[in-house]
Amino acid sequence: MHAHDQEHGDHSAYETGPERISVLERIFGENDVAAEANRAAFDAHGVRSVNLMSSPGAGKTTLLVHTLAHLRDSGVRAGVVEGDIETSIDADRLAGFGAQVALLNTGDGFGGECHLDAPMVAKALTTLDLASLDLLLVENVGNLVCPAEFDVGAHDSVMVYAITEGEEKPLKYPVMFRSVSVVLVNKMDLLPHLDFDLELFRRNMAQINPDAPLIEVSARTGDGLAEWHEWLSTSREPVRSA
Amino acid sequence: MHAHDQEHGDHSAYETGPERISVLERIFGENDVAAEANRAAFDAHGVRSVNLMSSPGAGKTTLLVHTLAHLRDSGVRAGVVEGDIETSIDADRLAGFGAQVALLNTGDGFGGECHLDAPMVAKALTTLDLASLDLLLVENVGNLVCPAEFDVGAHDSVMVYAITEGEEKPLKYPVMFRSVSVVLVNKMDLLPHLDFDLELFRRNMAQINPDAPLIEVSARTGDGLAEWHEWLSTSREPVRSA
Repeated sequence: MHAHDQEHGDHSAYETGPERISVLERIFGENDVAAEANRAAFDAHGVRSVNLMSSPGAGKTTLLVHTLAHLRDSGVRAGVVEGDIETSIDADRLAGFGAQVALLNTGDGFGGECHLDAPMVAKALTTLDLASLDLLLVENVGNLVCPAEFDVGAHDSVMVYAITEGEEKPLKYPVMFRSVSVVLVNKMDLLPHLDFDLELFRRNMAQINPDAPLIEVSARTGDGLAEWHEWLSTSREPVRSA
Repeated sequence: MHAHDQEHGDHSAYETGPERISVLERIFGENDVAAEANRAAFDAHGVRSVNLMSSPGAGKTTLLVHTLAHLRDSGVRAGVVEGDIETSIDADRLAGFGAQVALLNTGDGFGGECHLDAPMVAKALTTLDLASLDLLLVENVGNLVCPAEFDVGAHDSVMVYAITEGEEKPLKYPVMFRSVSVVLVNKMDLLPHLDFDLELFRRNMAQINPDAPLIEVSARTGDGLAEWHEWLSTSREPVRSA
């Protein structure tokens, strides 16, 4: 259910009443309060937090398998909040790297939740020992729309974009592409087998979010991940104060 | 905004009050009423309606380019409701095949709407001449969660699934995979270049939705589309009555 429909009678035959607007405003307002509390908790413990977003199947979990191994070998104490509608498939894949993993299954209502919000992440934090972490990676639900609307309290958002998704998605999903600090351009190993125009994608990104660097990677082969790990390590300290 | 969060205090620190539940129930209730009205309009005009859903970039629009050409050559009078958050990129790609195309941009609020609902489709129908159509194809917003929650009034829902998304998505997004009558397994031309296990995907689908046939296609090369077009034509008459 997506009540922001209701503010835009242009698209909808629904009645738009003050009751709905007030519900909507309260939910976003409460999310922002919870997000600031999460960020304050990260800052109080010196934990950097990064929110990973993408379409379904773009490669977030495969990337995290490499990244958790790298962090372990580098002595960085990492945690993961793993958001999925159902199953522990992804959380299971991330076990065994010495990271604390908190699984959030969002799917016990209606169609399954389509994003993580700050109160859900707050709940996950109660199962993690922030005092023993340096870095917390939040793997959001695979979705190019809803996750970008909810501040979960992370210091940065990162997008994993698979080149199999085409060149035009930054134009079609601009809120998501504007919300991130960096884009990992994934599945580069498939480039020879696709019609994907990398320069056109770069131009589309530059139009929507010229400040976000693009890092070309293959989570499958590991190519390019050193640059991503460098990005992760260069701003280890929380960048926002509580 | 996704108020169904609010019914599940287990995941959320939000307050769950009767006001929110009532807003939620009314929105779903109004959507169902609008969906039945859309279906009645399709039935009254003898129009079959099919709702296409997928992740972003799975190939719905590329598929439709082939399908609209096929329908034109077969003498089937087709229309398209094209749902996108922003831009007319997809609608522009579908011009020139003799089909009526209605563009619905959902993105003038918050993060951009993440699905089509029945009132939006009803609005699109006011711009189409149903009396001169045999088949209406609704291209939903690319998203594996939210579109499955909203009946738009189509007779069938169809999923376009790209094998680049991995084998496990039926288990992770079961509401979507259960909601469809057929799954087009797309990007089969990439199979030699992926680690994708087709038999594992088939087993996962059989677990979630054993009744939905899987049709292997490549929207890029056109391979396999004859079987999809056969599926479309075999139940040309509306399958539900109003």
